[in-house]
Amino acid sequence: MVKSIEWCGTVVRFIDQTKLPFEESYVTTDDVDVLLDAIRSLKIRGAPLIGIAAAYGVCLAANKLKLTDTAEFFSSLKQTINRLAEARPTAVNLFWALKRMEHVASHANSVADIRRRLVEEALKIHQEDKEACRRIGEFGSALIDDSVTILTHCNTGALATGGEGTAQSVITHAHRQGKVKCVFVGETRPMLQGARLTTWELQKMGVKVVLISDTMVGFFMSKKKIDLVVVGADRIAANGDVANKIGTYNLAVLANYHQIPFYVAAPTSTIDVFSPTGESIPIEFRSSSEVREIFGKQIVSPDTETQSPAFDITPSELITAIITETGVVRPPFSLQ
Amino acid sequence: MVKSIEWCGTVVRFIDQTKLPFEESYVTTDDVDVLLDAIRSLKIRGAPLIGIAAAYGVCLAANKLKLTDTAEFFSSLKQTINRLAEARPTAVNLFWALKRMEHVASHANSVADIRRRLVEEALKIHQEDKEACRRIGEFGSALIDDSVTILTHCNTGALATGGEGTAQSVITHAHRQGKVKCVFVGETRPMLQGARLTTWELQKMGVKVVLISDTMVGFFMSKKKIDLVVVGADRIAANGDVANKIGTYNLAVLANYHQIPFYVAAPTSTIDVFSPTGESIPIEFRSSSEVREIFGKQIVSPDTETQSPAFDITPSELITAIITETGVVRPPFSLQ
Repeated sequence: MVKSIEWCGTVVRFIDQTKLPFEESYVTTDDVDVLLDAIRSLKIRGAPLIGIAAAYGVCLAANKLKLTDTAEFFSSLKQTINRLAEARPTAVNLFWALKRMEHVASHANSVADIRRRLVEEALKIHQEDKEACRRIGEFGSALIDDSVTILTHCNTGALATGGEGTAQSVITHAHRQGKVKCVFVGETRPMLQGARLTTWELQKMGVKVVLISDTMVGFFMSKKKIDLVVVGADRIAANGDVANKIGTYNLAVLANYHQIPFYVAAPTSTIDVFSPTGESIPIEFRSSSEVREIFGKQIVSPDTETQSPAFDITPSELITAIITETGVVRPPFSLQ
Repeated sequence: MVKSIEWCGTVVRFIDQTKLPFEESYVTTDDVDVLLDAIRSLKIRGAPLIGIAAAYGVCLAANKLKLTDTAEFFSSLKQTINRLAEARPTAVNLFWALKRMEHVASHANSVADIRRRLVEEALKIHQEDKEACRRIGEFGSALIDDSVTILTHCNTGALATGGEGTAQSVITHAHRQGKVKCVFVGETRPMLQGARLTTWELQKMGVKVVLISDTMVGFFMSKKKIDLVVVGADRIAANGDVANKIGTYNLAVLANYHQIPFYVAAPTSTIDVFSPTGESIPIEFRSSSEVREIFGKQIVSPDTETQSPAFDITPSELITAIITETGVVRPPFSLQ
């Protein structure tokens, strides 16, 4: 299993996901700004991983800060935390992790104590996510029948988390139990996380993968080739509405039309009780060049107008169940 | 308006659509095999245009045939017609046009007469399609309210037909009537006909275009940004089921879920009364490299398994109306 991110004492080492699958390139840095840029530019992506990375980012910043007065140190650190919180707007794990980091720093009584507690907390966040991934896999795979073909979207594997993944952990647990006939992976335009990352990860694990264009989902559902859909989440509202990678909502509507189970797998850190419904979840619009280009290749003239929402909202009524590390929740959802 | 194909006395001139939008490159040939290869490789594409191109292909073959005996000539020509019919399986316009060409050849009384009648008939097929496009635009635009945002898929313009297009003719007629606020174009993976061809054509005509990834359709529908969908067709069964570019069915299900009108525009030559339902329409599966590559750029390792159905079937119950050159038909469909 690929190590998407690692704390190595004083530096963070992470894989540059924009170069996959053709180049397995790692970045080692002690600079929070390098990490921040990596989150913005999708070198580091996936809701749980963004949270972990941001936590390590706070540690890097704390290590570099020269201040010796505890209050001044904390106040300066808080500015970096705020900058990290602005990296991306939708995945709630980012804010959740930063809140934890701020909380432990605010309860320390010296600069050295802040630094120590921050590293402890970041490692704990990472370790908890790893454990959550395992339990999501266990709970989720128990829902899966023998000899199924699963459709998934975007990337929810080791690359997106601190462990085995969310939706992908469900798949790999079921695979190890011999239940998975095949996984259809939607390529997930515009950034192709399905094609580039999920295909790469699942192939390494010996899972039979069929890559399809996002346009082909309805066709294969209508031919009864897909038994269930499982996806991750970037933020889950209290009523069970799910923000996830753009295209998820297409799949949910299609699954509903074909009466195919539609599962969402995510750690409880992805639940945002302060968003009562999906309506209140901010949707990030990314650079329109992501649509005009594919993997660096222009597909239309550069003055073509595009729009690039990075996420969509799947209303809870289209979701069969949400799989978390604490168990499987079914509608009507009332999440806390 | 681009001339997708032209008969120039003894040769055919066509635009190589695989090079668009970056290169406007024309091929001139007197060789039916060049034309046949162009149809197979999508240099020439679009159901009506394939029919026209095949008709011209028969003319080229007839001009090259050295036989002088009428029966022998016809019999040899029939072999070329059969080869042309095997170029692509789904668009019924191909078989329809070739049947017309065979019919006129079979009623001629000399080799010279065959050659003359074939050219006449091919030009007639082309002219009729041009006229059909115009009337589809007139009938279709009458269905469209003021200030609408339209979603379309793949390419159904001058590049796909012998005239102004099918679905695109509806759009451009409505545009000239000042009714079109904006056209959302789905990029149409795997071959990106929406991005590469439709965007290019509509921009030339001054239509406001927003290019989106196929994954984004549900998002914009849920935000009430799309008022109606209009697409073309490659074959329409007698009950109104429609075979069209892969991804059309996704859009139809999404439009149905959001209660957005879903129109299909096609000439009557696309109707196949011998296909009682969509079930009997053969779906072409194309090379899996089309999914592994985008515009010649690899996106996954070359041993990745993919599937590439080129078309899907939209059941008639998801279609608001079918717009043909003879008028607008609404369900329940019983097409003749």
